Amino acid sequence: MSCSTPSSTYTPPPLARPVSPAARAHYQARLDEKTKPLGALGGLETLALRLACLIGGEQPELQDPQVMVFAADHGLAAEGISAFPQSVTHQMLLNFLSGGAAINVFARQHQLALTLVDAGVIGDLPAHPQLRHYKLGQGTQSSLHQAAMTEADCITAIKTGQQLVSAMPGNLLILGEMGIGNTSAASLIISRLLGLPITEVTGRGTGLDDPGLARKQQVLTQVLARHPQVSDPLGVLATFGGFEIAMMTGALLQAASEGRVLLMDGVIASSALLVAEQLQPGIKDWAIFSHRSAEPGHALLLEALGAEPLLDLGLRLGEGTGAALAYPLLVSALAMLNQMASLTEAGVSGPAGKIECTS
Amino acid sequence: MSCSTPSSTYTPPPLARPVSPAARAHYQARLDEKTKPLGALGGLETLALRLACLIGGEQPELQDPQVMVFAADHGLAAEGISAFPQSVTHQMLLNFLSGGAAINVFARQHQLALTLVDAGVIGDLPAHPQLRHYKLGQGTQSSLHQAAMTEADCITAIKTGQQLVSAMPGNLLILGEMGIGNTSAASLIISRLLGLPITEVTGRGTGLDDPGLARKQQVLTQVLARHPQVSDPLGVLATFGGFEIAMMTGALLQAASEGRVLLMDGVIASSALLVAEQLQPGIKDWAIFSHRSAEPGHALLLEALGAEPLLDLGLRLGEGTGAALAYPLLVSALAMLNQMASLTEAGVSGPAGKIECTS
Repeated sequence: MSCSTPSSTYTPPPLARPVSPAARAHYQARLDEKTKPLGALGGLETLALRLACLIGGEQPELQDPQVMVFAADHGLAAEGISAFPQSVTHQMLLNFLSGGAAINVFARQHQLALTLVDAGVIGDLPAHPQLRHYKLGQGTQSSLHQAAMTEADCITAIKTGQQLVSAMPGNLLILGEMGIGNTSAASLIISRLLGLPITEVTGRGTGLDDPGLARKQQVLTQVLARHPQVSDPLGVLATFGGFEIAMMTGALLQAASEGRVLLMDGVIASSALLVAEQLQPGIKDWAIFSHRSAEPGHALLLEALGAEPLLDLGLRLGEGTGAALAYPLLVSALAMLNQMASLTEAGVSGPAGKIECTS
Repeated sequence: MSCSTPSSTYTPPPLARPVSPAARAHYQARLDEKTKPLGALGGLETLALRLACLIGGEQPELQDPQVMVFAADHGLAAEGISAFPQSVTHQMLLNFLSGGAAINVFARQHQLALTLVDAGVIGDLPAHPQLRHYKLGQGTQSSLHQAAMTEADCITAIKTGQQLVSAMPGNLLILGEMGIGNTSAASLIISRLLGLPITEVTGRGTGLDDPGLARKQQVLTQVLARHPQVSDPLGVLATFGGFEIAMMTGALLQAASEGRVLLMDGVIASSALLVAEQLQPGIKDWAIFSHRSAEPGHALLLEALGAEPLLDLGLRLGEGTGAALAYPLLVSALAMLNQMASLTEAGVSGPAGKIECTS
């Protein structure tokens, strides 16, 4: 079926309060009074200001930070667009559950609560206290032949993401994902929603070689040609996306409606934010971009959103790992605001003003 | 006095063992077996490999990380090269002792032990459990008129830095500094040792405006012209440096001789490493560069050393703050190596190899 129906069938929740200019000026003045030269902590000061404005209060702090990893399989994986077999999605879910994956390691390091969501992984998964079972199917359909999912399923996925977040504590959300084939889905979404050539957006994913990348680009070009009319965000999400990307879209919309900080990971989570931004313009103001991924589509997306990421380490793992790695910088930024002495408190002189030669 | 005597009067300690190619291959193989696509954690994998090779063992871990902040005043401050009055050095020492400075905040966050060293601050400082009193003078002389310090004092400072480090526990050292005027000293050292124009190396320090920067460049040009013959590392350090930079040079040499990881901060600490590298070539292999400072001399120095920093946040505070902010990335890198499951352990399939179209 075609999924180019307008998005009127889904109404996203409203965004939380806008940032008040008075609050911004208040926090900026506090930063400027700290015992350091004006702006000497560079990007960390920008980060502190943004976080304080989003969180609010006299001592803005991060509370109960949550990592939610959404997993699903992709029909497109059958077209030979990944370096890894599709069964790895299921295998990695078991690895998450036994605590052996990269996101487990970084979440433990920073005491981030970790929840896994089966949004549509092929095969059964066991009951486990960290796993939520919301399987919408045994993977999506191949978008080379039809829409990845129906628009009804897409809306169900979005609403599921919303409900999952609304049940979570905390004021900061990291979204991660797992799904063989999902850089293809993300690339298709970015290409269509931003009007960028698919060849520029598409990268090596889990590690394709040159012929593999050429094949992936060829397949994705065919997929876009198969669905020429789809351009509205919900239609694009249903046609090209995945169950995990649709649930992440809902999770982001819900989180921003509740005033949570969105600490964004890489290209796949960011593709969900792009959909969310088109459904609810302004949601990007709730997002902190943790890193610039090695996937070319991510840099293009960051540029389109005017975003400046914190890290640039050539990461391309997903799972929320880049966001988890950047998390301590957010803690540092607010600790600086809340704990550093002011010039007055410490009895430290300010700048000398006009420089005089005293010799 | 002129300080262009050759460096034969000081013999640096030898570097710790070189990295064994077998050990490198062993750790690389372990990284490649982790449950993630090859190289998908980008710069974090490079970091893990370097740290493992430096630390060694089956479970290489950081132990008792130390931050040492060396402070001193600079005669050159009298020439109007800083936006802040010289008294700020002393005032900031008191701020460090009462826990209100940025490095206090970040050291507390990451449980880094913090030790302060008075290497030559103008004015008395109180007894305090975190403070070591090794004042070599009430600041240096102005290098516009004479060498900043005698070569004998310079060697005393280096050896003091060595002794201070040798008494410290731990296998990772962060050096920070405080001293109004010390970006000038660092810029002079970098310019002379790397043969770079002083106007390209010199930055705004604590925040000079355009006329202030022009004056700083003019003064530093005069300083270099005042000492045209000095080019050996010890002579350059004594003539243009500061007591804190000389002590840091010794601290780095001692730490690398004991096999400690050197987590480098910004332009001033890095200028000490540059001197150390010329005294003991190869010490840079023990250094991890935490960030690229906003000071232009730092980017040039990193380029000259072939170094790729972890963060690029426009920091320019010093105190060791950039290194402290990057520290959790080092912990993450080793946690990944030590804690992540291997593909075999987790029963996860490797790459499919040659990509076949299965549709």
